[in-house]
Amino acid sequence: MITFNLHFNTTESSKQDKHDSHFIQEKDSVFHKILEEKESHKSGYYDLPYDTKALQDCSTYMQDNAEILKDLTHIIIIGIGGSSLGLKAIDTMLYHLPHRNDIALKFLEHTDPIKIQKSLKRIRIQTSLFIVISKSGMTIETTSLMKYCLWRYNLLEPNLKKRLLIITDKSSILESWANENHIKTITINKNIGGRFSVLSAVGVVPLKILGYKVEEILDGAKILQDSFLARKEEHILEKAIFMANNHNTLPINILFSYSSSFRDFNLWYVQLWGESLGKINEKGKKVGLTPISLIGSIDQHSFLQLIIEGKNDKTITFLGINHNNYHEIVIPDIKMKGLESTDFVNDIPFAKLLSAQEKATMRVLDEDNLPVDSIQIDSLNEHNIGALIMYYELLTSAVGCIFEINTYDQPAVERGKKILSQMLR
Amino acid sequence: MITFNLHFNTTESSKQDKHDSHFIQEKDSVFHKILEEKESHKSGYYDLPYDTKALQDCSTYMQDNAEILKDLTHIIIIGIGGSSLGLKAIDTMLYHLPHRNDIALKFLEHTDPIKIQKSLKRIRIQTSLFIVISKSGMTIETTSLMKYCLWRYNLLEPNLKKRLLIITDKSSILESWANENHIKTITINKNIGGRFSVLSAVGVVPLKILGYKVEEILDGAKILQDSFLARKEEHILEKAIFMANNHNTLPINILFSYSSSFRDFNLWYVQLWGESLGKINEKGKKVGLTPISLIGSIDQHSFLQLIIEGKNDKTITFLGINHNNYHEIVIPDIKMKGLESTDFVNDIPFAKLLSAQEKATMRVLDEDNLPVDSIQIDSLNEHNIGALIMYYELLTSAVGCIFEINTYDQPAVERGKKILSQMLR
Repeated sequence: MITFNLHFNTTESSKQDKHDSHFIQEKDSVFHKILEEKESHKSGYYDLPYDTKALQDCSTYMQDNAEILKDLTHIIIIGIGGSSLGLKAIDTMLYHLPHRNDIALKFLEHTDPIKIQKSLKRIRIQTSLFIVISKSGMTIETTSLMKYCLWRYNLLEPNLKKRLLIITDKSSILESWANENHIKTITINKNIGGRFSVLSAVGVVPLKILGYKVEEILDGAKILQDSFLARKEEHILEKAIFMANNHNTLPINILFSYSSSFRDFNLWYVQLWGESLGKINEKGKKVGLTPISLIGSIDQHSFLQLIIEGKNDKTITFLGINHNNYHEIVIPDIKMKGLESTDFVNDIPFAKLLSAQEKATMRVLDEDNLPVDSIQIDSLNEHNIGALIMYYELLTSAVGCIFEINTYDQPAVERGKKILSQMLR
Repeated sequence: MITFNLHFNTTESSKQDKHDSHFIQEKDSVFHKILEEKESHKSGYYDLPYDTKALQDCSTYMQDNAEILKDLTHIIIIGIGGSSLGLKAIDTMLYHLPHRNDIALKFLEHTDPIKIQKSLKRIRIQTSLFIVISKSGMTIETTSLMKYCLWRYNLLEPNLKKRLLIITDKSSILESWANENHIKTITINKNIGGRFSVLSAVGVVPLKILGYKVEEILDGAKILQDSFLARKEEHILEKAIFMANNHNTLPINILFSYSSSFRDFNLWYVQLWGESLGKINEKGKKVGLTPISLIGSIDQHSFLQLIIEGKNDKTITFLGINHNNYHEIVIPDIKMKGLESTDFVNDIPFAKLLSAQEKATMRVLDEDNLPVDSIQIDSLNEHNIGALIMYYELLTSAVGCIFEINTYDQPAVERGKKILSQMLR
């Protein structure tokens, strides 16, 4: 179960923003714009929780390759951005589950030589599977790292080809190449953007091999979306309207997550929010909301001072877990002379301290009337994580509809690619 | 060697900012305010590069404890915020150096039980050293984690006490406790704030035990500070004036670092910048600049779109390395049918690709007249890292002087601590 709470007055917007923006204010209009996107298949992500193709493809793949999969020690994902962030986020959140296999998941996404060497340190080809994930097959980091692995591990040798799996767009150049070279491929639909692709084969296939109950992730996403479509998650629309209409005075959104398990989820959110919403809109106006990832309690010691006493230009979303399920480590009842004022945490589980730190911080910000909202998850399992992902995708789409932008493209990133190729040619 | 370049017109400021702010605009005034801070010892960090006390204390400690140190496999730092970020930053940047010992450095800073279990997984007390770093000794995360380790590893047993070292403020409660319990302590001056403490014993002692040439780190910092005091680093003042005087229209500063080696340095910068500058100033105005940490090229795939097409409210600092020293891994000359457009990187070292990606991105932002500056380091060694740290500390102090704030305190963080103790009592 997930509980959503908005601590701010959703109908408020600042003078500057009132004067400046002419965005939609009505929940019904936003809802219908989303419905339109879904029904016109502008983005395919809405369909993913109802689609069984990825699960079927995965199941076929796993049957056909049972021999390879049974001794697997490493999966190496070659992919960047939307092709790696979602998968990594889910694995980090659910890694503690007992049914997660003992397979190391490595990511080759960085062209930094120091990082490449480190990631490949313990790889033995005879117990590894390389999964290349690229929608177009043209991302320079991904192709370079793929070429490097083809060379280093002789992956095109007939007996090693089965150690390579490619996940790419239907009819992409990469799919043609793979078919010609008899390399196993699983495809996804072209209308599923990278950063909205985690519930497609991009996430489904590796997560299934790792032993997760992927059906439950999809089910969690489905139930949240159904509930939204039945107008039972109006807080999503309210939050989107508040954030979009205050984008001038509150241009920054912080995701303050109270568990190290959310570290990679936060990075997924940063891409989803930043790349989807940072756009020139239909009226030629530059819009966007800047995402910031914080992990509590640790970042209370680096960022909280700025949130409280710096310029009030931030909305703050708290993401926490009900820590009742993690009570095994307790702060021992040790009294230290002179340090008696720290004894109030003695005999308390660390998890309870962490939860209390989240609540105390939230209360401080509430007292200062800063715009806070909170997402509380009762436990980190497949179902809840599916819902959490769908929640953020719908919220992003809603803000995008209000901003009147194309939430699903990233036109500005292309320019750098052209300059890069000029520089290196 | 480090090269600093400002790509923006340092005398420019927006209409809104011109109207709104009455901050100092003259380099001389800012310089003299910094000089005053240094001479009045308002913050002790200015003195650290010239101070040999930490090195001497460390040397004595290492001689007295040679037997323990010779078989060390793990150092566990118990500390949070300013007590861990700087040390971690330096170790991550210099980890590749051949003289770095083969000792694992672990950090206990998080009250998250999942993280605690993971950090302590492979610890064997007979080959480990626990270093508690806390200025006051009253930080709740640090005391709780210290109590946990005292209990779990019986660190107060007479024969195990030598596995514990405490670094704390002179005359702190923690020092008294340690003295009474015959635990080895090294002290630092009270006027050295946590986030400005990395060149004190806080950083010096662990780094020296890890085998780094700490004298060269201090020397690099000293040379940069001397050069600044001789008015040969005017770009620091120019950048500070530009950033402070445009704080309304450009409230965000991105540090876009092109190497995974900078990952932890970026987090150190986030605390330094955020917690130092997010303040209510002498005139009662809330000021601050919001720091964002990005790593290239990977974050081009999550954040670049927002920088280019989102609201222009960001300054962007590029931090890069001259990759000539890291040319060992090369993209192989493999041609893939259909994917010929990716062949322009074939036969090029990954390091060169990464540098070119940095330059290409910088050029795109320059073309759009976004306020960019760059810091280029010729190689990651002790000397350069010392200079880089001093550069950022001086820049932060300069902005703080212009904002008319106390750069060195963090009053807002205290409120949450009181609420926390009420909640748990």
